[in-house]
Amino acid sequence: MSVLTRDIIVQFPDLTVRRSDRLLIAGPCSVESRDQLFRVAESVRESGFRFLRGGAFKPRTNPYSFQGLQEEGLKLLQAAAKEFDLKIVTEIVDASHLPMFMDTVDILQIGARNMANFHLLKQLAHASKPILLKRGFAATIEELLLAAEYLVSGGNQQVILCERGIRTFETATRATLDLSSVPIVKKISALPIIVDPSHATGRSDIVVPMALAGLVAGADGLMVEVHPNPPKALCDGLQSLTLEGFRELVAEINRLKPYLIKK
Amino acid sequence: MSVLTRDIIVQFPDLTVRRSDRLLIAGPCSVESRDQLFRVAESVRESGFRFLRGGAFKPRTNPYSFQGLQEEGLKLLQAAAKEFDLKIVTEIVDASHLPMFMDTVDILQIGARNMANFHLLKQLAHASKPILLKRGFAATIEELLLAAEYLVSGGNQQVILCERGIRTFETATRATLDLSSVPIVKKISALPIIVDPSHATGRSDIVVPMALAGLVAGADGLMVEVHPNPPKALCDGLQSLTLEGFRELVAEINRLKPYLIKK
Amino acid sequence: MSVLTRDIIVQFPDLTVRRSDRLLIAGPCSVESRDQLFRVAESVRESGFRFLRGGAFKPRTNPYSFQGLQEEGLKLLQAAAKEFDLKIVTEIVDASHLPMFMDTVDILQIGARNMANFHLLKQLAHASKPILLKRGFAATIEELLLAAEYLVSGGNQQVILCERGIRTFETATRATLDLSSVPIVKKISALPIIVDPSHATGRSDIVVPMALAGLVAGADGLMVEVHPNPPKALCDGLQSLTLEGFRELVAEINRLKPYLIKK
Amino acid sequence: MSVLTRDIIVQFPDLTVRRSDRLLIAGPCSVESRDQLFRVAESVRESGFRFLRGGAFKPRTNPYSFQGLQEEGLKLLQAAAKEFDLKIVTEIVDASHLPMFMDTVDILQIGARNMANFHLLKQLAHASKPILLKRGFAATIEELLLAAEYLVSGGNQQVILCERGIRTFETATRATLDLSSVPIVKKISALPIIVDPSHATGRSDIVVPMALAGLVAGADGLMVEVHPNPPKALCDGLQSLTLEGFRELVAEINRLKPYLIKK
Repeated sequence: MSVLTRDIIVQFPDLTVRRSDRLLIAGPCSVESRDQLFRVAESVRESGFRFLRGGAFKPRTNPYSFQGLQEEGLKLLQAAAKEFDLKIVTEIVDASHLPMFMDTVDILQIGARNMANFHLLKQLAHASKPILLKRGFAATIEELLLAAEYLVSGGNQQVILCERGIRTFETATRATLDLSSVPIVKKISALPIIVDPSHATGRSDIVVPMALAGLVAGADGLMVEVHPNPPKALCDGLQSLTLEGFRELVAEINRLKPYLIKK
Repeated sequence: MSVLTRDIIVQFPDLTVRRSDRLLIAGPCSVESRDQLFRVAESVRESGFRFLRGGAFKPRTNPYSFQGLQEEGLKLLQAAAKEFDLKIVTEIVDASHLPMFMDTVDILQIGARNMANFHLLKQLAHASKPILLKRGFAATIEELLLAAEYLVSGGNQQVILCERGIRTFETATRATLDLSSVPIVKKISALPIIVDPSHATGRSDIVVPMALAGLVAGADGLMVEVHPNPPKALCDGLQSLTLEGFRELVAEINRLKPYLIKK
Repeated sequence: MSVLTRDIIVQFPDLTVRRSDRLLIAGPCSVESRDQLFRVAESVRESGFRFLRGGAFKPRTNPYSFQGLQEEGLKLLQAAAKEFDLKIVTEIVDASHLPMFMDTVDILQIGARNMANFHLLKQLAHASKPILLKRGFAATIEELLLAAEYLVSGGNQQVILCERGIRTFETATRATLDLSSVPIVKKISALPIIVDPSHATGRSDIVVPMALAGLVAGADGLMVEVHPNPPKALCDGLQSLTLEGFRELVAEINRLKPYLIKK
Repeated sequence: MSVLTRDIIVQFPDLTVRRSDRLLIAGPCSVESRDQLFRVAESVRESGFRFLRGGAFKPRTNPYSFQGLQEEGLKLLQAAAKEFDLKIVTEIVDASHLPMFMDTVDILQIGARNMANFHLLKQLAHASKPILLKRGFAATIEELLLAAEYLVSGGNQQVILCERGIRTFETATRATLDLSSVPIVKKISALPIIVDPSHATGRSDIVVPMALAGLVAGADGLMVEVHPNPPKALCDGLQSLTLEGFRELVAEINRLKPYLIKK
């Protein structure tokens, strides 16, 4: 593992995110329109977060669900990133999209459903971009680390892990956020790990406490879903924070900072 | 639900624990000897924690495992509590033990394996003692609340819930600590809920971060296992903090307090 | 393990059930009325099955659900058994009920929720009655065998195990019937094991194929729920076969017999 | 759904497999050598099974595990199929391999890890080959059917589903074979479904009873792993039947046929 990843979560020519900073990523589940995306991007910028997420190519369980704006979505992300000086995080579902993503995206996301798509992992190992690798919802912590090993051993050491919940019998939440993975990964890997409380819980009313719990458990950052009008979202509205809810999260993180920094 | 339980977690003639205080319970998995118990009890007292746990009647998966000191264990708990001015929390496995427990114990614990032992719940509903009800490791949050309802509807409103992990496919931990249950319980119940990171994780090396994460998620307290010599423990040594580890946990809790208090 | 249990599933002065016979138990989830119970008992008798199940003391998740007719239920079971020359299988939830059950019941059932109620197991180990021990819905196969060991090592070797499904993420069924437990138990234990497809699946429309699959996997018998009018059942109506459905099951078992016998 | 799939599982110019025939697929986990593959293929042919499975491109959890013989593996499969007049079933992990597979393979297998790789599903929907779609080990039955819908709605109606176990807390088996999925799929879909007891159980000692249970539950066929020398297998040796074990399975299936045929 490179020394780089021990102190620095991710690095760009104009931006370095250290572990002490935490990596904070926010945005809508899907890019739906210029207005929707820009409103969220503005909020992200105001918060001090520097990373905008938004799905353009959406892997959906149901073939008849909204599949994302695709190339048009990438263009909107690029425009929003330029307008608000943000970095873009978005999911890549096939290696044939790499040329398009290399030009527009700052961090390539591998979704939970593709964590064990080893063919994709092998191909992305050659991309000179940081990769956010989400834990599969039926993957053990060991399997997550072995999936990361496909990337690292293939040549890409800029891997950021993401805990996003595992599938259990509990139905009160969409998945069960397994925060124990955070301190365990810290013990056996040099890779940074962030937490996605939005997909894990599937309910915006508990995203804030679970996000904060994740940081206190030792996570190097967060990824949260934010939408200006969650009930109208084309995807995952139930788990999206409103802009107001997002500001509350940011305020709580700032309140918690003195504790986190001294750590 | 009584107004009492909204602000106060548990109340005795000489001690009231409010939600802002948090309820902190520590002690060995099993009472093994006077020396073992007194060393832990002294540490608990020094920490400012006021509740000593220790198993006397142990429900063990394997009939050939150590089954606890039973009545002798209760007597040792009583002696330690007197010596260090602590309250006793210990598990009751059958209603026929009630007379013995009523004289010696301050909080009756219902273990995870008995959460759905509704016959026991009905009988303990008549006991005028606070009850710590642990979530069954295959119980949903709703089922935990319905189990509590057996106690509350039966007349005992002094119920404290305890999240202690659920059984999942992950093998890196003994169970998966489901911290999402904490904010969910807060939304739909007036009952206090604490977190047991020791049984949930089964590994002492991540007990501290998970305990702190639990508090930040909103838990009203903690229950942790502490043993003066974990490798020699007759039960659950892998998950027990040493006395030194316990002092570190207490230090971290104190460091986190400014954040928790303002909340 | 006694030699007895290797060839014989269960034995009474007037009835011996060998492994080659299979142990077939049927009846309503709860005893509700004389008419309900007698109609089912008559069907059971006609089928050639000799064991009638019916809950009198019901462990219910919700304290406000129907809790069973209790002693009155036991009396109705006794009357039906006498009228149709059947043996009675019913659940015991507390050892204090033993005297009452010793007089009326032929096989004591320990329910899934009490499989790890080791205090109850220790007390029932002294009862001179066969025991049907259901697998807890979060219990591993090893834990089921260790629970049985509480009975066997305590002196009661007449133990019959019952696979009734485990809790998983799948929601199309109430639990996931784990038929792999059947051949595994055969490999490592001399105890007989039967299958309860009614509680496992929670849906009567697949009880017949799952019952037959259980027998072909090697099960020593079945326990199925039957109700004369499932939509009106006070408990678990969705998973109960009608009398007609029960006759179909019996016909299929008879059709499968040539295959099973030669085995 | 086409009328075709209701009576016929899969059809080739020179071979039609009807539901009453059952679709029986056997072979090694990985193609390792000509000798290994030809010995298995000969056994398959002798048994009356007509479909040979064997992995050429292997998705492995660990990047340092054997990844398959790849193109060389496909060539060996083709040679064995020609020699013994068998059809080939093998896994495709990326759409870019399609041209190569179209020339050599008879049924394209989508592995459990790729069931929710919707990008791959969309591309295979255009292939004019039958597809064997394995259930993801964390997928619900509904999600399996929705994944199939990606293929069917995309134009490929020759889809065969495969139950191969789901991930649960039980550790005695590799996964938990969920045979309930078989009758449930029958009720809500016209697609055929087969059972893979080898991957589900992960232990060859219970493959035979679970295979037979699957057929009695209503499965349209089986896929089993067979290896001439399981302890030397490069992949999944523990779950592979020996040639002798495979002959026993075939004998049992033949013994069960009178029951299955009349069904």
